[in-house]
Amino acid sequence: MRIIILGGGGFIGKRLASELIQKGGLAQGELKHLTLVDVAFSEDKLRDPRVEYVEGDLSDETVMRNILRHPPDVIFHLAAIVSGEAEKNLDLGMKINFHASLLLLELCRELLIRPRIVFSSSCGVFGGDVSKVITDDTAPKPRSSYGTEKAMVELLMNDYSRRGFVDARTLRLPTIAVRPGKPNAATSSFISGIIREPLNGIPASYPVSPECAFWILSPKRVIQNLIHAANIDEKLLTGDRTINLPGLTVSVQEMISNLEKIAGNDVTKLITYEPDAFLQSIVLTWPPHFDTQRADKLGFVRDESVDEIIRTYIEEEGIRNK
Amino acid sequence: MRIIILGGGGFIGKRLASELIQKGGLAQGELKHLTLVDVAFSEDKLRDPRVEYVEGDLSDETVMRNILRHPPDVIFHLAAIVSGEAEKNLDLGMKINFHASLLLLELCRELLIRPRIVFSSSCGVFGGDVSKVITDDTAPKPRSSYGTEKAMVELLMNDYSRRGFVDARTLRLPTIAVRPGKPNAATSSFISGIIREPLNGIPASYPVSPECAFWILSPKRVIQNLIHAANIDEKLLTGDRTINLPGLTVSVQEMISNLEKIAGNDVTKLITYEPDAFLQSIVLTWPPHFDTQRADKLGFVRDESVDEIIRTYIEEEGIRNK
Repeated sequence: MRIIILGGGGFIGKRLASELIQKGGLAQGELKHLTLVDVAFSEDKLRDPRVEYVEGDLSDETVMRNILRHPPDVIFHLAAIVSGEAEKNLDLGMKINFHASLLLLELCRELLIRPRIVFSSSCGVFGGDVSKVITDDTAPKPRSSYGTEKAMVELLMNDYSRRGFVDARTLRLPTIAVRPGKPNAATSSFISGIIREPLNGIPASYPVSPECAFWILSPKRVIQNLIHAANIDEKLLTGDRTINLPGLTVSVQEMISNLEKIAGNDVTKLITYEPDAFLQSIVLTWPPHFDTQRADKLGFVRDESVDEIIRTYIEEEGIRNK
Repeated sequence: MRIIILGGGGFIGKRLASELIQKGGLAQGELKHLTLVDVAFSEDKLRDPRVEYVEGDLSDETVMRNILRHPPDVIFHLAAIVSGEAEKNLDLGMKINFHASLLLLELCRELLIRPRIVFSSSCGVFGGDVSKVITDDTAPKPRSSYGTEKAMVELLMNDYSRRGFVDARTLRLPTIAVRPGKPNAATSSFISGIIREPLNGIPASYPVSPECAFWILSPKRVIQNLIHAANIDEKLLTGDRTINLPGLTVSVQEMISNLEKIAGNDVTKLITYEPDAFLQSIVLTWPPHFDTQRADKLGFVRDESVDEIIRTYIEEEGIRNK
């Protein structure tokens, strides 16, 4: 089978690629060809004859037609302008998060086969009253352009599937923590930062009060869920292809106290509270409470605890536990 | 004040224009100029020096720039490819229902003023389990491309308002009954047809079983609600500009028996049941039960009864009651 990862140069994309190569494919078949597409790739490329790297802009029709010249069986669409950047640059966010996704769907519509698409949306499509529990029937009322763009593409993924052009599965990702590497322009970046930086001896701050809670999922579980989404039987989706992923409701304070139990006060004393109005205006509209019955029933997974999330991060990154 | 009606040649647009002229304006001020825009207009144009007619395609940037050259205070955006046509022609539906609306928002973004937009969306954004009661927090899960396009524009109206480019108010219109004139390509056309045609001595049919119910509103109340939407204080909308309009839950059987009480069996015997798979595939996904607390509180109105709806239609159209 042929698989494409749009956003294959990003942190999740790279990890998903490694996992697919290690597994040798998906439930539908053996991996024969894997195309990773992104605006740029880091040096640490996978050395595997099945892997092809394509640098290009997803909103460029020529680039996209070239990628799709050999019709793919599965497309993981993970490419996005992150929330903070999409809020600051509406045109760029609309271009990549919305128009490039519509272009993808339109080009799939022209194919003779009907590719399966796993699209990474976000729990950031929700916004407003954060005390409410979000269910599978709760209306997305985004309070960011990022959330708006994702919510629009969710609707398209459903309709283009209903029309038989694609077989999409949209996952609304919780905030991913702990992301390795450097901070990025996602407004949620600090949620990983307050674990990651102190473990590396670097000061970190959080922009919201410590009791603020978030709906989080580890990179490990995100990858498991993306693969599960690609493997799941279409019939089980019964016309609605948008899925709120399981996660954990965790406050900033809980994250810090769990980190302290694991790594000590020497580490957590590097964390400070630095209010930031711009970040607050977005992240404080994200509801942290979800009832993900449908996803649970469909076999999607969550982490056991914050403790597990932090320990997994330490283990994966090979950080020496003090 | 300057007002534009996009879709000003349609049945609702024409009636709204007459009403605005009769009222002399809106709460914000006196009507100085009214631009009606549509692909075509019928002969019965309004003779009023304030009214300008523009024939053109809303998805054409030149047409739209011309319309907006004098920045408007209020835009009623009623133009749409109706549900049945949008389902049969995806490209046309996307072009007019989605892309033309995005173009409108982008051009408003360039204006120095922030126009108020009253956008007519549809309860057709909902779909699926028709036994459920739709609340103000229910997720739109459209089962038609028309519903998908409308739901996407709702999200844009909210985000472009949040960003301060426009001051939008999106009304999700129930099925409008009784529409005067001829049947149209809306999948809901028969709901008006079974009242209208028999009253004119013409046979009519319905494609769903008689116990199927719909969420309906009369043209008279739609016009009142559109004007109310333009007049309402922005602060009352508290960040969410999408409103499920009040209506009545009425079955086909109830409509027919009410018509029989008013107009007699000579009229209703003209109505027959003719199942239609295409129409059923769309209209049977529209939920007929709504709890419109928010709209009720905001002062939007519904009809008293089906009886009232039918009698108003007879009165407005000057039909001789047998």
